[in-house]
Amino acid sequence: MRAVVPFDADRPKTRLADVLDERERSTLARAMLADVLAAVRAAGGEPTVLSTAPVDVDAPVRVDDRALTPAVNDALADAGPDRPVAVVMADLGLATGDALADLFDADGEVVIAPGRGGGTNALAVGHPEFRVDYHGLSYRDHRRIAEAAGASVSVVDSQRLSTDIDEPADLVELLLHADGRATAWLRDAGFELAVEDGRADVVRSR
Amino acid sequence: MRAVVPFDADRPKTRLADVLDERERSTLARAMLADVLAAVRAAGGEPTVLSTAPVDVDAPVRVDDRALTPAVNDALADAGPDRPVAVVMADLGLATGDALADLFDADGEVVIAPGRGGGTNALAVGHPEFRVDYHGLSYRDHRRIAEAAGASVSVVDSQRLSTDIDEPADLVELLLHADGRATAWLRDAGFELAVEDGRADVVRSR
Repeated sequence: MRAVVPFDADRPKTRLADVLDERERSTLARAMLADVLAAVRAAGGEPTVLSTAPVDVDAPVRVDDRALTPAVNDALADAGPDRPVAVVMADLGLATGDALADLFDADGEVVIAPGRGGGTNALAVGHPEFRVDYHGLSYRDHRRIAEAAGASVSVVDSQRLSTDIDEPADLVELLLHADGRATAWLRDAGFELAVEDGRADVVRSR
Repeated sequence: MRAVVPFDADRPKTRLADVLDERERSTLARAMLADVLAAVRAAGGEPTVLSTAPVDVDAPVRVDDRALTPAVNDALADAGPDRPVAVVMADLGLATGDALADLFDADGEVVIAPGRGGGTNALAVGHPEFRVDYHGLSYRDHRRIAEAAGASVSVVDSQRLSTDIDEPADLVELLLHADGRATAWLRDAGFELAVEDGRADVVRSR
């Protein structure tokens, strides 16, 4: 399956600013992007990075500096039953080939992997009239848009695909459940797991 | 499969105190317990509630006022390859029969459904020497305990099982992804989805 991987090359991961400086955030974001591309390929997908600016990465890059929604909708323009297109966010640091294969192989003209908090972390679109709208509660909106287009919908139940790495607490998940470039970089940067007041957290030793 | 459902009847859901008073928290916790019991049964499980105090619920109740870890370990005392025992937390408000069937049917002498933040939301134990330790990063600890016991481990990748309803933000997930007693109660109590600053939240209209 063709898979579009949107990437914000300009202001990546601003919600990690409390624990990582700008250069580190950029490095971690690119490491996660590489991990996601590897997972897409492991699931049999053919990834294209849809980036807001040129980025040096081992995959075709299409630069589109518009907002996420119109840029993705352009990429979905020729999606159809015989030409499905997946959209996989670049910050799914726990994504694996198995998890994405479940998305790619699920029945349904629109397959949704919801994110925690009402977002849409990954999609597989095989209906020509479906369009995305990432503003707000996009999981609910995407169900409604699919219904209005007459497209059948299925939902993938995956912790890995529901977890985007946005906030410092999410780094716990990367250290616990992933072993790709992003996790290796975090460890090299001195991050490790800790328990504070009975809750998991990360601490940085250097 | 036999399934133990630990329930804190005394101080349920204290981290929801900002949005629900004590009586409401108790009502929501009991509604979620009933939903979890229904999901366990839909997956072919035979639930027993392991409660800190007597509770009026449609399942056998075993009262054990000790801490979670020793109470669960007692319940696991006769677990083995021919007599597996599952442990399913009572606040898994998104649990479904399908998600729990994946847990019950997975290969592995110890099957773990991790929670967000390093917890252990559900287990299926078919090894006589495995014991739980819910303090701290229990997902990591349970892997280590299983390894030390020589038990094979598998991990279930499920957003539904990874989501425990602990904090106000988790109520978004109940409203979006569940339709059981707990969700019905939340709607009756006036909770609905909202988007604030681009992020999903709940608001209460009455």
